[in-house]
Amino acid sequence: MADKISYDYMVDSQEVDFTLRATVSSIVNAILGVAGVDARQRGFGVEVLNEQNYSWVLSRMAIELESRPLQFTMCQIETWINTYSRVLSTRNFMLTDAKGKVFGRAVTQWCMIDLTARTPVDLTKLVDEHNQSLVDRPSPIDKPRKIVGVHPQQTAEHRVVYSDIDYNQHVNTLRYVDMIFDRLPLSTFDGDGTMRMDIHFIHECRYGQLLTVGYEQRERLSLFEIQTEEGVAAVRASVEWR
Amino acid sequence: MADKISYDYMVDSQEVDFTLRATVSSIVNAILGVAGVDARQRGFGVEVLNEQNYSWVLSRMAIELESRPLQFTMCQIETWINTYSRVLSTRNFMLTDAKGKVFGRAVTQWCMIDLTARTPVDLTKLVDEHNQSLVDRPSPIDKPRKIVGVHPQQTAEHRVVYSDIDYNQHVNTLRYVDMIFDRLPLSTFDGDGTMRMDIHFIHECRYGQLLTVGYEQRERLSLFEIQTEEGVAAVRASVEWR
Repeated sequence: MADKISYDYMVDSQEVDFTLRATVSSIVNAILGVAGVDARQRGFGVEVLNEQNYSWVLSRMAIELESRPLQFTMCQIETWINTYSRVLSTRNFMLTDAKGKVFGRAVTQWCMIDLTARTPVDLTKLVDEHNQSLVDRPSPIDKPRKIVGVHPQQTAEHRVVYSDIDYNQHVNTLRYVDMIFDRLPLSTFDGDGTMRMDIHFIHECRYGQLLTVGYEQRERLSLFEIQTEEGVAAVRASVEWR
Repeated sequence: MADKISYDYMVDSQEVDFTLRATVSSIVNAILGVAGVDARQRGFGVEVLNEQNYSWVLSRMAIELESRPLQFTMCQIETWINTYSRVLSTRNFMLTDAKGKVFGRAVTQWCMIDLTARTPVDLTKLVDEHNQSLVDRPSPIDKPRKIVGVHPQQTAEHRVVYSDIDYNQHVNTLRYVDMIFDRLPLSTFDGDGTMRMDIHFIHECRYGQLLTVGYEQRERLSLFEIQTEEGVAAVRASVEWR
């Protein structure tokens, strides 16, 4: 068993939209940054995994925001792992502003993959590191929900370019989040941003591929499916506006 | 007169490309972040200027890199202002890795603008703050060079979306840098990244506009011009590969 650990971060002026509030994409970036640092400190960061030709891949994420913090807000991100199976490790987050108000909660589920085969590796290989890192505390929100039956009313194309890709020439998680939010009308972002997003990363997309971003609006629910040219679902997401 | 000030930053895993080196865009992001923090500490940050309905706008930048630092490298960015005129304030940067090796140098030139009129404000309004902040030290490289006569051999279109825009609904500086580098073949990034980039921000682009990114390759020189639908040059840039 281990303690959860807090990390500080400040919302800088490159991370806000026209409302002067942090974009969802920048909040996800902060969460993923903390996940990376925390994994490294516990001895199972990507650079250690890479030595065995393994890496972490984000499989699913759910995030609930009560508000998006304003520019220059100092925030704290707490993170803890509370469970793992043979395939998925569950890492949780609580986001607090400088006044101590919790404004965000997230649950992420990660696979460890073999970098050559691109297939999941049994997580019990990390049993010692994981057991030392487990915290006996429930996830702060429901785990990522299944998303099925997206029927796009609108589609947009996106060619995968250099600035979209990560060290592995696959599309970076944050760019998928951007592709999703870029489909919504600007007025969507006028409010304080109370919402829940679920996102599933199903299939990795590569440099040069032409993607189709499908968007369906069902009352307060925005649904998305990103497909490859071959019609394979690469990412599905839903955003529930509260 | 004032001392120059150093800021630490680490290249994190979201900031590297497939070579595991920091992207030019992420290095520019770090520089602009330091510019913002330093201006704020000296009493002329955007939030103080905003009270008078003014803001800083980056007009030109030159950056020379001897190499791009690897993932997880701890870096230091020194910054100092060494001159200002009625229209432009010149802020300089030196980037050093953990071993003390200078790997980057940059010169940026900033206008202060009236946010309603979108026109430059006379910088002598900040004479006291500026004089206290001036450092008697030359710029580390040539100031941004003029770029004229770009004759694109290739063009690509880019619709300005939500994730491209800043607090003012204008395209974010970093997205222009991305648009430029996204035109280049991936093999361009294989090397250690020795280069000089000059970039001029001529005309602000807004949400919804359709931009054309023109690219011309002249031996070791990559030239770019981003135009609006009306054919107005918004950004010109050159990258000299060394």
